[in-house]
Amino acid sequence: MTHPTPWLDIAPDSDFSLHNLPFGIFSVGSEPPAVGVAIGEWIIDMAAASRFGVLYPSQVPESVFQEKSLNALIALGRPVAREVRDILQEQLTQTDSVLHQFSERILIRQADATMHLPVAIGDYTDFYSSLEHATNVGELFRPKNPLLPNWKHLPVAYHGRASSIVVSGTTIRRPSGQILPSGATEPIFSPSQALDYELELGFVIGKNSALGVPVSTDEAEDYIFGCVLFNDWSARDIQRWEYQPLGPFLSKNFASSISPWVVMLDALGAFRVAGPEQVPEPLPYLQTEGALNFDLNLEVAIKPQTSETVVCRTNARHLYWNIRQQIAHHTISGCNLRAGDLLATGTISGSHDSAGPSSGCLLELTEGGKKPILLSDGTERTYLQDGDEVIMRGYAERDGLRVGFGEVRGAISLP
Amino acid sequence: MTHPTPWLDIAPDSDFSLHNLPFGIFSVGSEPPAVGVAIGEWIIDMAAASRFGVLYPSQVPESVFQEKSLNALIALGRPVAREVRDILQEQLTQTDSVLHQFSERILIRQADATMHLPVAIGDYTDFYSSLEHATNVGELFRPKNPLLPNWKHLPVAYHGRASSIVVSGTTIRRPSGQILPSGATEPIFSPSQALDYELELGFVIGKNSALGVPVSTDEAEDYIFGCVLFNDWSARDIQRWEYQPLGPFLSKNFASSISPWVVMLDALGAFRVAGPEQVPEPLPYLQTEGALNFDLNLEVAIKPQTSETVVCRTNARHLYWNIRQQIAHHTISGCNLRAGDLLATGTISGSHDSAGPSSGCLLELTEGGKKPILLSDGTERTYLQDGDEVIMRGYAERDGLRVGFGEVRGAISLP
Repeated sequence: MTHPTPWLDIAPDSDFSLHNLPFGIFSVGSEPPAVGVAIGEWIIDMAAASRFGVLYPSQVPESVFQEKSLNALIALGRPVAREVRDILQEQLTQTDSVLHQFSERILIRQADATMHLPVAIGDYTDFYSSLEHATNVGELFRPKNPLLPNWKHLPVAYHGRASSIVVSGTTIRRPSGQILPSGATEPIFSPSQALDYELELGFVIGKNSALGVPVSTDEAEDYIFGCVLFNDWSARDIQRWEYQPLGPFLSKNFASSISPWVVMLDALGAFRVAGPEQVPEPLPYLQTEGALNFDLNLEVAIKPQTSETVVCRTNARHLYWNIRQQIAHHTISGCNLRAGDLLATGTISGSHDSAGPSSGCLLELTEGGKKPILLSDGTERTYLQDGDEVIMRGYAERDGLRVGFGEVRGAISLP
Repeated sequence: MTHPTPWLDIAPDSDFSLHNLPFGIFSVGSEPPAVGVAIGEWIIDMAAASRFGVLYPSQVPESVFQEKSLNALIALGRPVAREVRDILQEQLTQTDSVLHQFSERILIRQADATMHLPVAIGDYTDFYSSLEHATNVGELFRPKNPLLPNWKHLPVAYHGRASSIVVSGTTIRRPSGQILPSGATEPIFSPSQALDYELELGFVIGKNSALGVPVSTDEAEDYIFGCVLFNDWSARDIQRWEYQPLGPFLSKNFASSISPWVVMLDALGAFRVAGPEQVPEPLPYLQTEGALNFDLNLEVAIKPQTSETVVCRTNARHLYWNIRQQIAHHTISGCNLRAGDLLATGTISGSHDSAGPSSGCLLELTEGGKKPILLSDGTERTYLQDGDEVIMRGYAERDGLRVGFGEVRGAISLP
């Protein structure tokens, strides 16, 4: 298959292809943050593009691109963002385009920019949608009872903390809290000794739903703006002591990291695949048909001061519950969604029979800290050490089309 | 003790005394919502007051009072709101004041106004801080294991849903969801048959804390702007099936209701009392001394079409964990608070030996739906029926001072 060729020089393995064009918030020097679109190694300064007339005939006001979050753009609706993406694709392939003419004043090197949190997140919900993850973790927390009876009937989820979601690159402070030492009956106060990452995708909600009115699986994707990589940092020792009966709290709320570029759902459409078979059949409000999962290659690397080691390779296609089901379930009670909300998938782990390690967190990979993994610098890890940087990457590739998320990274600092 | 007398006629049992002066968001007719302060049966239109010079010499810009939420005022810091309250108290007691002179253009009857959600809530956290509630509910959900081992070591909490928090008076749609019928192994889809209220207080956060930096118990109250009544509606049958292992989700996220007037912490200072003794002694970061609970009388009434029946009388003084401990715990992981966040106490139930029913929810009061309560119209309730209105009220009274919250009410409609 052949695809249009941009006049910009874009590496064939770039995450930010002509087909992708994700939105983000960037700044250069002391300039205020504003909206940009990634292409190859460049950022399209969208306020400048708008000023020069690149976006004609779209009616998006320039002010939307001068905001420090994508929320104002998102609030215009995905059809508007889609139109902007369509126009940019055209302008990037035509050498007589306004964008080409003024490219020196509109394009900025990513290397020269600082990225910011792309969305002012309202509510953040974390699902638990990987069967492999739920089973593996369940075995560690509840050996006799790993997969609870509700798991295959509904996409289990809990509300998370929005205030502590930070953009890729932000240093993560090791959390302290209450921990029950093995064999003890009284907790101690300590920095977490079991600091973990969780490999997830996050979906950014693009449209408000009405309080009291469920969103059906058929309508669900209209409510999604785009997708990011998401690292839901977790302190397993704090979690183990606190999580009964109301779920994880401090073990999760100290930080989550997201990738800076929001990939529009439209850019992912070409990479749909069927998800796992669902047995038992879900209740009618959760039933979906067709190829609704996304074939996204995901990996996690740990990088101490020296070189990085890829410790996980998996794929989002393994997720048991798809995003339509997550949205239909989330709203079946009447709970409303708002543009700017974030729905994360929960840790994505591969099937047991995949080649190589496919577990999306160290809790699984080291079997609760019992089996250390070896890094390329010769050191071992059960959980993260101070100074370790965790890097997650994700991309889809098919028929010569490539769409990637870039990275979400974060290094651990002292408590 | 004698207290200053306002020139306005205020009933001695009014919740909105000269000492109170809570902030809220009101509108009249088709005018846009704006900031008001309650006094007796009146609202001080704060934008008008500012325009006429009532607030001199404070420097609060009038625009802060033209907002549709209190967030801009809160962001100025509690000392600013305290100064405004002090000035209003003075203006309301001096007959030669600007407020008195222009009272016809500044004061609005509450009966003529519509109240709105007072705060644009960022993150909402729900604690579980009543020992009586945790014990009673624990007995119903886990008969062998009512109070879990962590409960007396930390203020258990979970993150709740902010988008569905509504102001008093908003009709609550009965949620539907998955329910596991008694004795069944497969869930059914049904409107909740066990719809409940939960009597709580909510604390509105007034100041941002830094990510990664815990707030100590000593500093904690500087981070509180004020307090509201809070009804955390709950669907017990949905909760029972979904809540393991990550906590309540749909059973709580369909709606919570808050009272429209935010009572400043300064107005509650006169009503402090010591809380229950804490054994075992909490870890150092949770230790507090002195009278840190609030002596607030609370009640719940159920009102079908006919007359209301008070079904619960209790007091916030019974809470095991105080607000300083809640904030210190919430932030000990490094989780940051933001002005506009809401921290709710969890259901407030009285001690078992209190006279009369003191349980803050029907789950407790009817022992899980097994023992119906009788209403004054002769009907019985285990859980709420369509058309029932739930009304919560709260006030403090001491030495001739009275400070009240008004009401939070909500009626149940069909799913």
